[in-house]
Amino acid sequence: MKNKQFTQQESDLLASIMQSRRDVRGNHFIDKPLEDTVINQILNAAQLAPSVGFSQPWEFVLIQDQSTKDQVVESFNQENQKAQRQFEAQQQSKYTKLKLEGIKESALNIAVFYSPSNEPVLGQTSMPEMGKYSVVCAIQNMWLMARSLNVGMGWVSILNPQTVKSLLNAPDHLELVAYLCVGYVDEFLEKPELEQLNWKTRKDIEGLIRFECFDDV
Amino acid sequence: MKNKQFTQQESDLLASIMQSRRDVRGNHFIDKPLEDTVINQILNAAQLAPSVGFSQPWEFVLIQDQSTKDQVVESFNQENQKAQRQFEAQQQSKYTKLKLEGIKESALNIAVFYSPSNEPVLGQTSMPEMGKYSVVCAIQNMWLMARSLNVGMGWVSILNPQTVKSLLNAPDHLELVAYLCVGYVDEFLEKPELEQLNWKTRKDIEGLIRFECFDDV
Repeated sequence: MKNKQFTQQESDLLASIMQSRRDVRGNHFIDKPLEDTVINQILNAAQLAPSVGFSQPWEFVLIQDQSTKDQVVESFNQENQKAQRQFEAQQQSKYTKLKLEGIKESALNIAVFYSPSNEPVLGQTSMPEMGKYSVVCAIQNMWLMARSLNVGMGWVSILNPQTVKSLLNAPDHLELVAYLCVGYVDEFLEKPELEQLNWKTRKDIEGLIRFECFDDV
Repeated sequence: MKNKQFTQQESDLLASIMQSRRDVRGNHFIDKPLEDTVINQILNAAQLAPSVGFSQPWEFVLIQDQSTKDQVVESFNQENQKAQRQFEAQQQSKYTKLKLEGIKESALNIAVFYSPSNEPVLGQTSMPEMGKYSVVCAIQNMWLMARSLNVGMGWVSILNPQTVKSLLNAPDHLELVAYLCVGYVDEFLEKPELEQLNWKTRKDIEGLIRFECFDDV
């Protein structure tokens, strides 16, 4: 074969980066600025993601302004109060104890938008959601790149996307896919916090795989 | 810090894996079976992906059966004919020359489903699409892991998801997120095929980044 071959050792390193990546919340970010070279490496990883029809339908807003962060936290608090009510007694009391965002604690917030095309996009004609899925591939690349640079990242989804859009003065046609908190950390937890706290147990991959088709139900 | 630190060299290796990952189509897959250990490493990478509320909402169907593949190709052909008509004259003639799937040529097809929860999911209460986004993070992990194992992967999205669901006898509540073609290849292209063919040009990351907010439009 003509081009780059990776070794098993290199593949194992990739598995190790995936294994030690965490969703980082505010109790783990430390007060240390991110170097521009680090931010650039994370953003360049986004640009290396696959995108449907090579559409690269992503846009990024880098946020450090405290008053913007305060307003995003306000949207989080409103949405989180609504969310708590959806969980039943025992879970609810666990839920309220969780720290679920690191908006102010992290050095950098990144809002990631999907920018739809006005023209048909190759590969997106039967599955219109493919554009947004491309943006998510870019986010996962950023997450792994951040971890390999020993930088934590958290994805805050308990937000009203419309509120965040108007806070950032985003044009109507853009859609908020993710609000990310990025920064150095005191530690990366050994396991996902929700696993450690027995919020949910880790599924066995064997039970999630089927061969050829689903059995008759 | 207590736990694993990666070096810049290790981070550069991750960037190199991302850089050489390609969406592989049928003209590049070769007739060579995938070892079980390779398939397992790819599926384990999915299981290491982030998921909203640690919900791990993914299910996989591994397909090698020729008659299933034939029927999926039939859905592709139908959807692709509809798609071609959406592109204008010059683009249409380019479009019809493209090979856009490797369903039969690849050793293994993997259908990836989103399995929604009956109960509220932490982090998904304000943005219901987070469940499907978690599945996409798993797919991007699989794609990178495959590349690090020198295995090609292609994401076929020119399909009717309902047709594929019924071919695989999938329960109603599952949603098809991706249909993947996986196998050894003769080469990984230096650049994305759609970039090489000038279907779309690569965007400059600088133009996709804003600071603090969007300017007044």
